[in-house]
Amino acid sequence: MNPSPYLLLTPGPVAVPSFVREAISQQTMQHHSQAFYDFYEAFLNKLKYLFQTQQTTLAMIGNGSMGMEALISSLFWEQDKVLVVSMGKFSKRWANYVRLLGLNLLEIEINWGKTVSPEQILQVLEKETEVKGMILTHCETSTGALLDIEEIVFAVKQKYPSILAVVDAISLVGALPFYFDDWKIDAAVVAAQKALMNPTGTCYFALSEQAVAQLQPSDAGDARNLYNYYHAAQKNSYPYSPPVQLFYGVNAVLDYMINKKLPVIWNETLVASRTFKKFVLENKGLIWSELPSDSLTTFSFPDQDMTQLKAACIANGVEMSGGQDDWKGKIMRISHLGLYDTSVITKAMEVILHNINLKKY
Amino acid sequence: MNPSPYLLLTPGPVAVPSFVREAISQQTMQHHSQAFYDFYEAFLNKLKYLFQTQQTTLAMIGNGSMGMEALISSLFWEQDKVLVVSMGKFSKRWANYVRLLGLNLLEIEINWGKTVSPEQILQVLEKETEVKGMILTHCETSTGALLDIEEIVFAVKQKYPSILAVVDAISLVGALPFYFDDWKIDAAVVAAQKALMNPTGTCYFALSEQAVAQLQPSDAGDARNLYNYYHAAQKNSYPYSPPVQLFYGVNAVLDYMINKKLPVIWNETLVASRTFKKFVLENKGLIWSELPSDSLTTFSFPDQDMTQLKAACIANGVEMSGGQDDWKGKIMRISHLGLYDTSVITKAMEVILHNINLKKY
Repeated sequence: MNPSPYLLLTPGPVAVPSFVREAISQQTMQHHSQAFYDFYEAFLNKLKYLFQTQQTTLAMIGNGSMGMEALISSLFWEQDKVLVVSMGKFSKRWANYVRLLGLNLLEIEINWGKTVSPEQILQVLEKETEVKGMILTHCETSTGALLDIEEIVFAVKQKYPSILAVVDAISLVGALPFYFDDWKIDAAVVAAQKALMNPTGTCYFALSEQAVAQLQPSDAGDARNLYNYYHAAQKNSYPYSPPVQLFYGVNAVLDYMINKKLPVIWNETLVASRTFKKFVLENKGLIWSELPSDSLTTFSFPDQDMTQLKAACIANGVEMSGGQDDWKGKIMRISHLGLYDTSVITKAMEVILHNINLKKY
Repeated sequence: MNPSPYLLLTPGPVAVPSFVREAISQQTMQHHSQAFYDFYEAFLNKLKYLFQTQQTTLAMIGNGSMGMEALISSLFWEQDKVLVVSMGKFSKRWANYVRLLGLNLLEIEINWGKTVSPEQILQVLEKETEVKGMILTHCETSTGALLDIEEIVFAVKQKYPSILAVVDAISLVGALPFYFDDWKIDAAVVAAQKALMNPTGTCYFALSEQAVAQLQPSDAGDARNLYNYYHAAQKNSYPYSPPVQLFYGVNAVLDYMINKKLPVIWNETLVASRTFKKFVLENKGLIWSELPSDSLTTFSFPDQDMTQLKAACIANGVEMSGGQDDWKGKIMRISHLGLYDTSVITKAMEVILHNINLKKY
């Protein structure tokens, strides 16, 4: 049960549990010290469990956008041809960023809320040569739509093993099944303020050997180049001033996840999501995505002003998000990330039901 | 008095006071909310006091290096000619970064520990045309050497008013006198883990109108472009997921500084520095910089293995830094940043004296 009567149920930031808040309030430590090296080594190892990988994990100061920029600018160079599936606010951002870097952008643009099949991607790839990588958004937070990463990466890597599969897993890793190694992903990023239930300010990466081989030195002072983080991590150190307290907080959640076991947490997310989605449908509401993620639900009710409903829910102590850009005013989004129990979802449903009824009758 | 018997006296990170640790342990808030906009508006205003400016202030996720990169990449474009005074590990990093961005680097490289006069800079500028900006490091943390920013910027701007004066004030703002407007600086950055006594993870900027006029849109998803932060700040919002709890911590220190008054804090730094520097000289030690900053002291003792002395001090509960790169093993560095009283400096001096004597007799 959330300790506060006020429920923050936006798909990031997620309410920070008290054990995390306690962890980040610990004193800092010098990073040029054995104590830090020991901590950081163990920390990077725990991240391997989170991503389900035995390959490289890294940590960096940044939010999700900064993390994706670091990935894209560290893995691709000059005229590299990079395919991006753009299907909402954030994936569109990665497409624009690829263009901004002067890379050769190959964009598959699909309508908000829609998903794309492995076949559609293969069709595009068949017409191209020398595609260096593809950037996929596992869960597009602006719409709640999923890509079936397992299927897509399997299909593409089978035919084009040299294409790097880069996955924005920002609002999914830790909440739902994600198998970096088994799914043959080459690079993934997650941000602290999502399923890791931490303050915004850090992001975390998994990199395959194939991805690591693409890293190139630029300059030691190029703080966006993951080469520097990889290189420093070989000595269990961080190449700049590290965000020590933010690492403490994420470390506490990794311990929690290791103890509780990821499948148990994944299942909790699933139960919350399915309960909520069933509630929406039973009340004649609409789930807005073709392949909806279970890390959030994007929904609306007929004849219901969603901006007004969102405000009414906030007035009743439950904060959810509205739509962004194209979907502004049309939808609401509720997060299923973080410490969740049935009382949380029950409260959210009660508040929504109460306010729909108020409007309707 | 530092509450712990263990004293962290490295020139970053600085020990985080308990009132800051309490502030960052508060619950997060949604950033697309009036509560956040109100908080952020007041927060950016308090930063004006810190920098002593009535112009623009901004906040960003990042450490000092990421902050300098954001400044350099946001203010200069394409073939802009940019002068960098390189005088130690960090200022050299800014020179390399200017080169990496493909800008036209004009480097004044001076020996570690040395400073540069306004005349030397003017001499270089006289031979050049169309210099767009100059990057100055107020206190070079790797050596403890100062640049006299007030004198240099005054001299240069009088003759070349269009040259942007960009100042790395990372390890100085908040600890020692710094007058952004009066000194006619165009852009400055400070990092949270220095005089702001906060966890590493955020950096803060002041920008003159002349600097703001140089900002250019790239893409909304370019999280290193300060244009996006400036643009969002017009509506009291942050363009990406903001580091809410880290802002809470810095906000608490800004309140502390506003209540205590900056000159009182600046004077405490000065007293600690002078006391320590006098102690070094009285014990036949050496202060390693031509124009030493009072935010830290870089020192050595004759016939003393400084690596050994540093280790001995840590064993006695006082952690200071050693030298970096060229100065590795040759020096020690003690910070005068943060919550400081005479007992802290006394303890540090006692421990040093104890260990010098052990070696000598």
